[in-house]
Amino acid sequence: MTDPTLPARVRIHEVGPRDGLQNEKTVVPVAVKSEFIHRLAAAGLTTIEATSFVHPRWVPQLADAEELFPLLRDLNGVRLPVLVPNERGLDRALAHGAREVAVFASATESFSHANLNRSIDESLVMFTPVVARAIDAEVPVRGYLSMCFGDPWEGAVPVAQVVRVARRLFDLGCAELSLGDTIGVATPGQVTELLTALNEADIPADRLAVHFHDTYGQALANTLTALRHGVTTVDASAGGLGGCPFARTATGNLATEDLLWMLRGLGIETGVDLDRLTDTSLWLAGHLGRPSPSRTVRALSHKES
Amino acid sequence: MTDPTLPARVRIHEVGPRDGLQNEKTVVPVAVKSEFIHRLAAAGLTTIEATSFVHPRWVPQLADAEELFPLLRDLNGVRLPVLVPNERGLDRALAHGAREVAVFASATESFSHANLNRSIDESLVMFTPVVARAIDAEVPVRGYLSMCFGDPWEGAVPVAQVVRVARRLFDLGCAELSLGDTIGVATPGQVTELLTALNEADIPADRLAVHFHDTYGQALANTLTALRHGVTTVDASAGGLGGCPFARTATGNLATEDLLWMLRGLGIETGVDLDRLTDTSLWLAGHLGRPSPSRTVRALSHKES
Repeated sequence: MTDPTLPARVRIHEVGPRDGLQNEKTVVPVAVKSEFIHRLAAAGLTTIEATSFVHPRWVPQLADAEELFPLLRDLNGVRLPVLVPNERGLDRALAHGAREVAVFASATESFSHANLNRSIDESLVMFTPVVARAIDAEVPVRGYLSMCFGDPWEGAVPVAQVVRVARRLFDLGCAELSLGDTIGVATPGQVTELLTALNEADIPADRLAVHFHDTYGQALANTLTALRHGVTTVDASAGGLGGCPFARTATGNLATEDLLWMLRGLGIETGVDLDRLTDTSLWLAGHLGRPSPSRTVRALSHKES
Repeated sequence: MTDPTLPARVRIHEVGPRDGLQNEKTVVPVAVKSEFIHRLAAAGLTTIEATSFVHPRWVPQLADAEELFPLLRDLNGVRLPVLVPNERGLDRALAHGAREVAVFASATESFSHANLNRSIDESLVMFTPVVARAIDAEVPVRGYLSMCFGDPWEGAVPVAQVVRVARRLFDLGCAELSLGDTIGVATPGQVTELLTALNEADIPADRLAVHFHDTYGQALANTLTALRHGVTTVDASAGGLGGCPFARTATGNLATEDLLWMLRGLGIETGVDLDRLTDTSLWLAGHLGRPSPSRTVRALSHKES
């Protein structure tokens, strides 16, 4: 039964290699990362956030971005955005052939200071030339907007504040905005409220993505709600890779497999092969030395054994 | 922001002491079970499925039903349904003071044979005097209908078949029917489809409960969908207690805490205190010797530590 309030197709923005791996303590060799990304592409993922051109000191796991990126040149037709924190990062990304980049902003002052060491305004000043120069190079820019629903220091985040920063990121020239529930506290009513407010501010749903964390088990219910509001781009992480500051041993990102199980059941096309993706997550879990937190990965692997 | 398509209040039917514990290998002493149920009641739960009057050989964990039930007499105002498999079970339940019972049927022939060793028709013949005699004793009967969305032997379950068995359980005299996704495979479109068909068959949503398992991470998205179709009784298990035949080390029942996080965020009343419930699940996890699979329990416990 198809549901007219849901989209026919969803594009999954796979964040496992970047957002998923960045907090992993076990250093993953560059050859494994390259194979991971190739396997994700072979499973049918068409947008794979590959790495981050941050200073190696900040994110040691991704210090090999310059080695990794050239290994992905054969992946024709796959979008491989990379995170860039500033102009220096953009220079490195462009020099290594990146054709899409992303910047990472915060909806709250507290997290902006904690994560970027500057205010929201100061971060937007920093991003202005990054976005402008990327556009000049015909490289589209995704904006990440973190802490859209709750903040560990500030609690609930006013919707008007999120809309204001979202508007400014689009005004800078971002092509797409990913709304992040960085600490995983959001519930479906908040998703409805924010997406309604963004729509009223003339920010169309087709330029938005949602990025939910499963810390409190809410990610899929929130995603379903976003789909009902016209969002068709969903961030997810293969195998549920990715930590969270408040639950390091628990889960982080929405697992791509849990998302796929729902979308497949709803008859929503993604082009991704669940079995191949699950095999990939099990293979990577072997390299990381611990089981995937994805419930679908666990259920499918127990079924086969 | 309240959502007019959602109920103002949800009754949680807590199944942890029965459905949650029944597959646990670690035998839990009767005093711990009694304390568990008292703590659940103190957290605000008003319907707690306490145990099962099955033959002790079938479910060794619940062989102490006759010892346990008298320990709960002080719980005034708390509904304490018990599962009864047949007339002998009903006799024992009534003799020990049970004021609500439940019977457990299957929507599929395969699971009816596997679980009850008889066909669906034969199981309904067996339940007929159980329900009739319970009603004579002014004891309401809940019907469980398992495998409503998928069956490990038969695959997808036709909606018409579920509606047919549901109709017969109401015709027997069941006061309420709990629709079970026993293997956790359902997705929101199926929930919509079944609830729509039941409504068209003149089975009102206020006599239905939903019972989702989180095996594939879908339980909360399915629950949200059921709420939008007028269901206001939701089965859940404290701490996510409860196994599943295909993923013993993964998760079983929807965790009451994960459900509460969503309902609280949506402004839906339950009367249940999340912090007290989380403490109870952590305390029981200590007795079972393994962490709770509930994401909310894990997140809240990490936050406090």
